[in-house]
Amino acid sequence: MSQSAARWSKLFPILSWGRTYNSDELTGDITAAVIVTIMLVPQSLAYALLAGLPAEVGLYASILPLVAYAIFGTSRALAVGPVAVASLMTASALAPLGLETLQDYIAAAAVLAVLSGLMLLAMGALRLGVIANFLSHPLISGFITASGILIATSQIKHLLGISAGGHNLIEMLHSLWLGLPEINIPTVLVSLAALGGLIWVRKGLAPLLQRMGVRKTHAQTAARVGPVFAVIGTIFAAWALDLQALGVSVVGTVPTGLPPFGMPEFDLGLLSALAIPALLISVIGYVESVSVAQTLAAKRRQQIDPNQELIALGASSVASGFSGGFPVTGGFARSVVNFDAGARSPAAGAFTAVGLLFAAVYLTPFLYFLPKATLAATIIIAVLSLIDLSILRRSWEYSRADFSTVLTTILLTLFAGVEVGVSSGLILSLALFIWKTSRPHVAEVGQVAGYEHFRNILRHDVITDPAVLSLRIDESLYFANAQRMEELVVSRAVALPELKHVVLMCSAVNEIDLSALESLEAINHRLDDMGIVLNLSEVKGPVTDRLQRGDFLDHLTGKVFLSQFEAFQELRTNSGQARQSDVE
Amino acid sequence: MSQSAARWSKLFPILSWGRTYNSDELTGDITAAVIVTIMLVPQSLAYALLAGLPAEVGLYASILPLVAYAIFGTSRALAVGPVAVASLMTASALAPLGLETLQDYIAAAAVLAVLSGLMLLAMGALRLGVIANFLSHPLISGFITASGILIATSQIKHLLGISAGGHNLIEMLHSLWLGLPEINIPTVLVSLAALGGLIWVRKGLAPLLQRMGVRKTHAQTAARVGPVFAVIGTIFAAWALDLQALGVSVVGTVPTGLPPFGMPEFDLGLLSALAIPALLISVIGYVESVSVAQTLAAKRRQQIDPNQELIALGASSVASGFSGGFPVTGGFARSVVNFDAGARSPAAGAFTAVGLLFAAVYLTPFLYFLPKATLAATIIIAVLSLIDLSILRRSWEYSRADFSTVLTTILLTLFAGVEVGVSSGLILSLALFIWKTSRPHVAEVGQVAGYEHFRNILRHDVITDPAVLSLRIDESLYFANAQRMEELVVSRAVALPELKHVVLMCSAVNEIDLSALESLEAINHRLDDMGIVLNLSEVKGPVTDRLQRGDFLDHLTGKVFLSQFEAFQELRTNSGQARQSDVE
Repeated sequence: MSQSAARWSKLFPILSWGRTYNSDELTGDITAAVIVTIMLVPQSLAYALLAGLPAEVGLYASILPLVAYAIFGTSRALAVGPVAVASLMTASALAPLGLETLQDYIAAAAVLAVLSGLMLLAMGALRLGVIANFLSHPLISGFITASGILIATSQIKHLLGISAGGHNLIEMLHSLWLGLPEINIPTVLVSLAALGGLIWVRKGLAPLLQRMGVRKTHAQTAARVGPVFAVIGTIFAAWALDLQALGVSVVGTVPTGLPPFGMPEFDLGLLSALAIPALLISVIGYVESVSVAQTLAAKRRQQIDPNQELIALGASSVASGFSGGFPVTGGFARSVVNFDAGARSPAAGAFTAVGLLFAAVYLTPFLYFLPKATLAATIIIAVLSLIDLSILRRSWEYSRADFSTVLTTILLTLFAGVEVGVSSGLILSLALFIWKTSRPHVAEVGQVAGYEHFRNILRHDVITDPAVLSLRIDESLYFANAQRMEELVVSRAVALPELKHVVLMCSAVNEIDLSALESLEAINHRLDDMGIVLNLSEVKGPVTDRLQRGDFLDHLTGKVFLSQFEAFQELRTNSGQARQSDVE
Repeated sequence: MSQSAARWSKLFPILSWGRTYNSDELTGDITAAVIVTIMLVPQSLAYALLAGLPAEVGLYASILPLVAYAIFGTSRALAVGPVAVASLMTASALAPLGLETLQDYIAAAAVLAVLSGLMLLAMGALRLGVIANFLSHPLISGFITASGILIATSQIKHLLGISAGGHNLIEMLHSLWLGLPEINIPTVLVSLAALGGLIWVRKGLAPLLQRMGVRKTHAQTAARVGPVFAVIGTIFAAWALDLQALGVSVVGTVPTGLPPFGMPEFDLGLLSALAIPALLISVIGYVESVSVAQTLAAKRRQQIDPNQELIALGASSVASGFSGGFPVTGGFARSVVNFDAGARSPAAGAFTAVGLLFAAVYLTPFLYFLPKATLAATIIIAVLSLIDLSILRRSWEYSRADFSTVLTTILLTLFAGVEVGVSSGLILSLALFIWKTSRPHVAEVGQVAGYEHFRNILRHDVITDPAVLSLRIDESLYFANAQRMEELVVSRAVALPELKHVVLMCSAVNEIDLSALESLEAINHRLDDMGIVLNLSEVKGPVTDRLQRGDFLDHLTGKVFLSQFEAFQELRTNSGQARQSDVE
């Protein structure tokens, strides 16, 4: 393959896997596509309603994005489309806009999709996939858990057949409480039937099928597509029993036909109002997709390319916006089903798109009688697997900093909204990191007997010398801790009357910035005034390079030693009277 | 001294230095007070005008704050009062409020002083003096330089006798350009005389006096109080030649009497509009004051207490606000004069306050004929010493990160305003630090022949082993770099077919957070799949403590070694065939 061809294949992975595509792969992909289509029809409708959009928008958002991902994506299993968290974030981004007509709302959702897609494309072009790393795992877990709680709560009104609203957990619960007197018993019965059916499909169907001799993965796949039975069953019940007349809300007329195509209309005001939400949806969707794709790729020893995934997900979101959809990303459950059902290449996604196109054109009339309660039950069962409060316990046990990030993210997401929640979690986690580095650990070290190795005198039995103070500085030196370090070193030195030499062991100093250099100069000067010599040891290459640019090393009263051992050998005055006992 | 007395003395340092106050100190303090008073009268008036306030407000802001600092301060030389940068920041904080009357403007300035004082007191009570460390030295230098340029530019209109405005350098220069046709020649002559006199006093007076046999410090002190001669000279000229009739602006009627006393009126809207400016004024004023105080204290081997300084400067600003003043802080030039003139205790400040009170009550009628051009010339000469563009060169030579912080701060301060400038500099410097830590340096290390010491194989001649890959990770492991580290370690391991052991040398890893722990688990797992064992070495005490809380160490395929030497001794397979040549 020539270099230019390699570049094209990198941008269009379809060119490399398409070249060797064979009938085995075709069979696997088509089987997977049929199963994923059956699973996606109710999910697409449900997530569109969650985002505050008409049901058919969910179908539209599932077609072209799958095709775009098939062209640009590097994961062989990731299935792209509307997902729960992005739908919640879409609703939360559009609610404050105060749009008057449904048409405006649909158009704004499409603009949000295009905007977040363009942001992903830009990050991909700039190879900024690393930005996603700034959202820590505990933060994402906390955010997803809180989002799951919000989503489940938002669906309760459909289960009860009441109307309710609210933009945070308290408002939602209050609104549900106020609506309770209007509870519709037939709706509750449908909900209970749907929930019961869904839970049974999830817990009971797979074991039953396995007992009947079906292979485990097939049984699990059947359980995953189970929701379609709840859909068919309740549609039939609603039609046969005329449940609509009893007050059960149904989806109603879903327009039939191809999705619209064209650039959504927008103005600058709308763009600036949606910029932050679009960024958050992009980054969170990307983080989630890549983690699903990496998990599945690892199972088959395949690789995904995180920067190319930015391009692929960006193209998918743009495609969604251009075809009347809303922000999409890779979904966990559908990707697992796709993988388990035998998808071998991104072509499976394209075939799924064909299936959904068929559904949009031919199946929508059958959806008229679909109770909204069934969709709500589908959503609730799906998001319950997102809720994982164990992250609170795990982070509490590991570190208070991680715990406070998780707790802040969860509480603010629940009570102040998804955008506030995730942004505050991000800012807090960065602030805590900076705060920690501004108050570094400094250990006085001594030589471990029998080794040329130096450890903390408070933790190890080590050899020291009254004339030499060896301090290991456990942090890069920069403006936020430079002053503190200066005070600390000088005050330690002042307290030791026999002291002749201070050695700063720099094995953990990865950086010395200009402020810290000034502090080192001050330490050198202040120790000199006390008749004490300043030495450095184990200064790393990149740090040495930088120190040599200034004249600090010319003024340094002592030396720079390659190793702490060398420094101690040269500077110690006697055979090593331990100071340890005085200090502890 | 009992413990309770010690606590009282800590809060009121006057209790400790006051106890031993003697006549020697009294003589020194009174001499210094007389000289500083002569210097402060014109400066106070000038800085009030710079802040957009009537001249007498400058005198008010110089009296009670000095008394408050004398009670709470720990520096024996710091002189508190209106200073150039805080005056500029005051003007910039009040301008956008669109206040209608001068009375409202004066009241808002007092509120700003009280608010910034309360913030300093709160930081002092919480012992948050370290917050100031987050403003790096290069950032502060850049900010002060840019402020000096803005201040000097803002005074040119007074030198030329034209009216002009503008909130940034471009607007100011444009406005001056438009005003140029209205230039007033008599004003320009007064300006040239004042500037010439001031420059001569600064450059020529001290050498002249020294040649005449005056001691060097006395000669320098005389040069510092020189501006008072320019004031007296131009007042006389304006009165004798009736310059006012020729179009020369004079200060005019300055009310005579004691400063007003009482809490300034405010509402919540005003408080929230002033909160950010007040915080910036507090922190920047504090940083500047403490650095002056520390410099002077070091000369006499005295100590200052940074947290007590927060209390003292906070009390001074509150005192200023309660007596009709505006934000104050420690000034560089006046503190040096105070020090050189022999101030021995904070009492010198209290005596200076008496001098200024005398000026406010008796001298103001004489200020009627003082040309504004003289005050402008005083300000320009004073701030020229603040402008130091060499920080650009120094930071450029040292590191691009420091340079970009300085340049951003300077440009944004000049062209977007003081608050935007300093905040952007702060955010940029933190962002650059985080960015750097998210892309850590990782060195493959080998044993330095003859030592138990391990260094980078690319920089040193070291011993390695084809079965052992030793990687020194030069950064704390946390969410922003965990993923990157995982990819890096695994991809290095994949490339070495003979590899049996990976050793992560953790001497520079000061922290492992929960995300990084998950990445370590992933590295352990992925290496295990390749039949490679993961080991750690030189893990620090605090990090070990944390790792022991989870079950990572139970799953670790290899061991945790005390030192890298121990690890290498145990894991190496042969006498040490160097891999170095393959890698370079």
